[in-house]
Amino acid sequence: MKIAVLPGDGIGTEIVAEAVKVLKALDLKFEMESALVGGAAYEAHGHPLPESTLNLAKAADAVLFGAVGDWKYDKLDRPLRPEQAILGLRKNLGLFANFRPAICYEQLVGASSLKPELIAGLDILIIRELTGDIYFGQPRGRRTAVDGHFPGAEEAFDTMRYSRPEIERIAHVAFQAARKRNKKVTSVDKANVLETFQFWKDVVTDVHKEYPDVELQHMYVDNAAMQLVKAPKAFDVVVTGNMFGDILSDEASMLTGSIGMLPSASLNSSNQGLYEPSHGSAPDIAGKGIANPLATILSAAMMLRFSLNQEAAAQRIEAAVQKVLAQGLRTPDIYSEGTTKVGTAQMGDAVVKAL
Amino acid sequence: MKIAVLPGDGIGTEIVAEAVKVLKALDLKFEMESALVGGAAYEAHGHPLPESTLNLAKAADAVLFGAVGDWKYDKLDRPLRPEQAILGLRKNLGLFANFRPAICYEQLVGASSLKPELIAGLDILIIRELTGDIYFGQPRGRRTAVDGHFPGAEEAFDTMRYSRPEIERIAHVAFQAARKRNKKVTSVDKANVLETFQFWKDVVTDVHKEYPDVELQHMYVDNAAMQLVKAPKAFDVVVTGNMFGDILSDEASMLTGSIGMLPSASLNSSNQGLYEPSHGSAPDIAGKGIANPLATILSAAMMLRFSLNQEAAAQRIEAAVQKVLAQGLRTPDIYSEGTTKVGTAQMGDAVVKAL
Ligand SMILES: CC(C)[C@H](C(=O)O)[C@@H](O)C(=O)O
Ligand SMILES: CC(C)[C@H](C(=O)O)[C@@H](O)C(=O)O
Repeated sequence: MKIAVLPGDGIGTEIVAEAVKVLKALDLKFEMESALVGGAAYEAHGHPLPESTLNLAKAADAVLFGAVGDWKYDKLDRPLRPEQAILGLRKNLGLFANFRPAICYEQLVGASSLKPELIAGLDILIIRELTGDIYFGQPRGRRTAVDGHFPGAEEAFDTMRYSRPEIERIAHVAFQAARKRNKKVTSVDKANVLETFQFWKDVVTDVHKEYPDVELQHMYVDNAAMQLVKAPKAFDVVVTGNMFGDILSDEASMLTGSIGMLPSASLNSSNQGLYEPSHGSAPDIAGKGIANPLATILSAAMMLRFSLNQEAAAQRIEAAVQKVLAQGLRTPDIYSEGTTKVGTAQMGDAVVKAL
Repeated sequence: MKIAVLPGDGIGTEIVAEAVKVLKALDLKFEMESALVGGAAYEAHGHPLPESTLNLAKAADAVLFGAVGDWKYDKLDRPLRPEQAILGLRKNLGLFANFRPAICYEQLVGASSLKPELIAGLDILIIRELTGDIYFGQPRGRRTAVDGHFPGAEEAFDTMRYSRPEIERIAHVAFQAARKRNKKVTSVDKANVLETFQFWKDVVTDVHKEYPDVELQHMYVDNAAMQLVKAPKAFDVVVTGNMFGDILSDEASMLTGSIGMLPSASLNSSNQGLYEPSHGSAPDIAGKGIANPLATILSAAMMLRFSLNQEAAAQRIEAAVQKVLAQGLRTPDIYSEGTTKVGTAQMGDAVVKAL
């Protein structure tokens, strides 16, 4: 079992170090190899996703990823910016299925913006298609408008698109995930406006015929953004495209109030995967030793489950995280009165001890 | 002053009747003429936006719009569905600037999903571009994929696009609105992925040079969806494209907990406008006399302000709405213990009395 470890920028290095610590404590046989990615790779090699890093990721069974990005790279040309590394990894590894659980931990209900009764016990799974849609559609660029409101003016454009097999495979992933949960899928579209998402709706409806035991609901994206606020617990599995999934999965994570706790997995069709926390590189707190490593540690658990076929080890990690929460240990982002404030490394050590 | 009154479907007829009642009580000279739109127009004339309705709207100074749509039209071909009426009106009247205030009324703080301290006193203004973006971009449709992950497969596609003058005019609207408020504009984009929104960001930055007294912040749409949940009061004016604005303005309205209270205005460059509540046609409660008419009544106030140059009358209506809330009158959607439950017509009558 080979793991590519890509810590990246900002707090990435600190939180990945803790996840590696936890993995090493498991007494499983992994080969782990690290490489630079994002801004760190740009500074060392002039590119956010150097050939060598990409090859390492391709050759691995799984990638443990920290976070990339910093304001200081904002002025770079787009192909050199840190985020391009993550887009490049998704595309080159074919990681089309992104799993973003939004879970509200019992002990952290108070951290949510929402009233406790609306959020306590929340456990929804957002499945975002990750290699299609307007993220990668061609053509895109700048040109002179030939029609529209201002023909002759300078304009920029992008292409949204989905093909039938792309929608089919993500729909299967969603229905299969729902089967192991509460058997309800909400497919989010904008079929009332977009051709792409009328097609999405049609194809998801077709695939659903193979899953009569799972309930399928269609919802417009604007309504979904509202219902997540109004009654998040009414959802089970949410499946949607790359662009809408980007927005809704972030909204859903923030609803829980503890985005520092939320892992994510991005898989391809051979279960090779990239695992990363749902939060970003947080340059403002980087290097201070206060970042919450739990989202990354829980991402490592997902990695064991989905790509390395080590369910027991995954559960050991998840139980250990529950235990440190129950012990009252909290990094500053989830701290509240009456709990014990700890730093990044202390939190990692506590998880290792609780294993 | 000529007002086209388009009640539409579902609760549309009930809530517009109350707004008309309030307008008539003002003793101003309007000419009001009604027409069918949406499903109602489809049933009578075979089209959701008949020529006659469109001509009436074009000839008016302002359109007072209720709501359109019902599940029963879901199976119609897209060009015949009720929502096409609203898209057609926006396009034909050139209503590019959509104003969606998200206000949390002091008396209704409890109706929000959010903790009171996060939402009390909220007063933000979302300005959504309404005639461009992927809503109207050409080409769009279905075809055989020539590249992408599955060349040869059936695919659907749409075109996102913005031209410089389209972005400039909405940016001016936003900066000018911010000048009358707290002088802060948040421009929401996805410049890290989309050519269209890198251009958006560049053009908004250019226009900002003319408004040195207004603070400009750029934010990615995924982050905006999070920050609205985390700290909605940190925003003042939010400006964004048609698609992102659709999602974020609905999210923001729902945060207030009282979407039945929120008006909207859609204006063109000659201040001709369409005014409608932020909520939909609610077919589930149509005909029961329990819908909240206040969003529509407040939309009529916006109409007086923006299109009919009657600021004093607008303020009279807004003060009357405050008064009925202070009296404790509530339709079921905003009812809470200790207040007085009233129906649609009673609420309209109370506003008239309070004028
Ligand atoms: C960094 C950015 C390109 C990326 C995306 O939009 O997918 C991020 O927001 C995410 O969700 O992983
Ligand atoms: C009905 C639909 C076409 C419309 C839109 O997407 O613009 C609606 O959601 C709105 O926001 O007015």
